[in-house]
Amino acid sequence: MAASCIISVAITGSVPRKRDNPALPVTVAEQIESTHAAYEAGASLVHVHVRNDDETPSSDPEKFAAFQEGVRRHCPDIIVQFSTGGRGRALEARGAMLHLRPDMASLATGSVNFPTIVYENPPDFVRSLAGTMRDLGIKPEIEVFDLAMLTNTADLVAEGLILPRPHVQFVFGVKHALPPREDILDFELSLLHELIPGATWTAAGIGRDQFTVTRWALARGGHVRT
Amino acid sequence: MAASCIISVAITGSVPRKRDNPALPVTVAEQIESTHAAYEAGASLVHVHVRNDDETPSSDPEKFAAFQEGVRRHCPDIIVQFSTGGRGRALEARGAMLHLRPDMASLATGSVNFPTIVYENPPDFVRSLAGTMRDLGIKPEIEVFDLAMLTNTADLVAEGLILPRPHVQFVFGVKHALPPREDILDFELSLLHELIPGATWTAAGIGRDQFTVTRWALARGGHVRT
Ligand SMILES: [Zn+2]
Ligand SMILES: [Zn+2]
Ligand SMILES: [Zn+2]
Ligand SMILES: [Zn+2]
Repeated sequence: MAASCIISVAITGSVPRKRDNPALPVTVAEQIESTHAAYEAGASLVHVHVRNDDETPSSDPEKFAAFQEGVRRHCPDIIVQFSTGGRGRALEARGAMLHLRPDMASLATGSVNFPTIVYENPPDFVRSLAGTMRDLGIKPEIEVFDLAMLTNTADLVAEGLILPRPHVQFVFGVKHALPPREDILDFELSLLHELIPGATWTAAGIGRDQFTVTRWALARGGHVRT
Repeated sequence: MAASCIISVAITGSVPRKRDNPALPVTVAEQIESTHAAYEAGASLVHVHVRNDDETPSSDPEKFAAFQEGVRRHCPDIIVQFSTGGRGRALEARGAMLHLRPDMASLATGSVNFPTIVYENPPDFVRSLAGTMRDLGIKPEIEVFDLAMLTNTADLVAEGLILPRPHVQFVFGVKHALPPREDILDFELSLLHELIPGATWTAAGIGRDQFTVTRWALARGGHVRT
């Protein structure tokens, strides 16, 4: 993953609803076709949140399994990444689909405020998800919403709960977490290179910040999510 | 507060117990005498967590009132700062003593992991505490345990929930929050000067990091807590 640029696609976040965007893929069948279209356009990684019938974020392992099976059929070599985040999902359920052994899964290594709630990732929960991913051979994508998540990741690598050279995503623009600032990205990268040498990384902006942050990441040799 | 150096004393944190340190002041009478001794040694500000009889952190307004009354008698011009933090205190109770109008109160402007728990300060809770302090004329001491707490503070100042030129404390060395690193302090200070011009600041290290962080703060013109 270090040599070339990975174009990844987050087909369905945890927040938007069909009433915001009627084209939003929310059923598993829609998500598979949306991934297929992105794959034909060049995407090499898909990050997925599955949804309940009422469009709220789901933790149902059967939905994750159906998505994984469909995507493997339609897009044979795409990297499948399951989200362990998502608002309103119970802590115990957020890793319930990891036995499906996706190629990757997201892993937030700390807690932070989101627009209206605390995005809770207590220390024991983070350690449990990290250990499960390591034991099942799932590569984590570390989600860094605030600076201590990066230093926590270095500690987890030192402890062996995360394997060396993880993939790290710096996220910008979620209200109450880090705002999109180029100097913050540069400072995060200086810590990353010192504390977790050999890690690969990307940066993502939410909503209107998406293109700006992608430009910063490309200019610095990071991978890109669309 | 900007012109000279404030020596502050945190007489009782939320964690240590008498079994760790028999000299720890935990009753209100002990806390008043401990503050008196620090005052005679030059302390100009006292930060206090009151305790229940079993030594766990308390939110009891009567204990805060008794402390405030005793300290005003023994140390007439010391600045009294109440903690609104502390582990194991219910959210609703953490600001229950603010009607006593201490000179200052601590205010954490976001959430972060602590050694074993999530230190929860949900967005609405932060706004409510900030608004109460502003309305009662209590100066907040902003506690920055992770970077987004600083950018959130700038937003709260812009909104008018925190008055301009607040006092900010950068905290280092709580496990799972920011580690003690001089480059992190320098980066925080660069953001502080840009985003909240005129703010005063201090830096505090926990436990064995206390003297190191105090040295960094003194070298940069910050205030000091002992
Ligand atoms: Zn996601
Ligand atoms: Zn297809
Ligand atoms: Zn006395
Ligand atoms: Zn305190």
